[in-house]
Amino acid sequence: MTRWYEDIEIDEAFPLGEHTFTAAEIIRFAQLYDPQYFHTDPEAAKHSHFDGLIASGWHTASVGHRKMVDALSAEAERLESIGEKPGIPGPSPGINRMDFTNPVRPGDTVRYQLTVTQKRPSKSLPGWGVLHQRIEAHKTSGDIVYVAELVGFIKMRDYKPPFNVRLVMWAMTVPGLKQLLKRQ
Amino acid sequence: MTRWYEDIEIDEAFPLGEHTFTAAEIIRFAQLYDPQYFHTDPEAAKHSHFDGLIASGWHTASVGHRKMVDALSAEAERLESIGEKPGIPGPSPGINRMDFTNPVRPGDTVRYQLTVTQKRPSKSLPGWGVLHQRIEAHKTSGDIVYVAELVGFIKMRDYKPPFNVRLVMWAMTVPGLKQLLKRQ
Repeated sequence: MTRWYEDIEIDEAFPLGEHTFTAAEIIRFAQLYDPQYFHTDPEAAKHSHFDGLIASGWHTASVGHRKMVDALSAEAERLESIGEKPGIPGPSPGINRMDFTNPVRPGDTVRYQLTVTQKRPSKSLPGWGVLHQRIEAHKTSGDIVYVAELVGFIKMRDYKPPFNVRLVMWAMTVPGLKQLLKRQ
Repeated sequence: MTRWYEDIEIDEAFPLGEHTFTAAEIIRFAQLYDPQYFHTDPEAAKHSHFDGLIASGWHTASVGHRKMVDALSAEAERLESIGEKPGIPGPSPGINRMDFTNPVRPGDTVRYQLTVTQKRPSKSLPGWGVLHQRIEAHKTSGDIVYVAELVGFIKMRDYKPPFNVRLVMWAMTVPGLKQLLKRQ
């Protein structure tokens, strides 16, 4: 998310754009990361459980991540262009669930969207919030193909650290002291 | 898994082999699916939170999937070569958790392994078992970089379907009847 913790609305959908999967890219991804015949061989795939070539779930998920990175950095640029400071996202500690509910086939256009489903202040990282985010991917026919629940950190705009944290933050700016503190 | 449901031992580690990540492939993956500067730009990455280039988590996970597909199909070939019939895996309905616990850097060799942590007969697919599988990735230094819990189906060897299921299975072999049954 490119918003500050305080500005994030629960359950507001943030569109990430869409992607059309071609047979060539489905096969290219699968040759590298998921070489099962129903992902790599259009002829043999006709005799599989899926009745034809389908994208690897890891491909569907990776494209979704790309759409998210692009959409969030475009939103950050937009905010900067109107003189606003975008929020600062932190590292993502992991993913809570991933479901592949329908196959993605060559020619399918898939629309991704992001929704924040929960937010709370982090216990381990003062000044940061923890977000539960849901990424959903639908075909233009409406069929849902992929859902994931991501956990992420986002900075708080209005956070004022307590005195002991401010003391450590100040100490970290003193040359040499940072290395010393890191060693403990 | 390439074993039959009945033969699967809980908590027995199945090695999937290892992979050395190069800077070139870390950058190539990230340019396609995760174009954040700490995944694509070795110079700029030095000033990031990670102090250098690191692999996208989706890259670490996708390579793990590749290792799994390769190891399981090699194991199936081995079983066939000694006259045994390998078990039949079904589709994977999803992933229960994914955690990225340490960064993967250029030159790191990562060792993947698979463990079945739970098994039970499927309620929705008679004749199949549901497996909870854990995929773990360690650097040669021992640091764990990635853990995921996968859900999968595996066929039962000794399953005898009840009469009504056998009747439907027989009916599916009668030409024309399969289409008719599918339409309902």
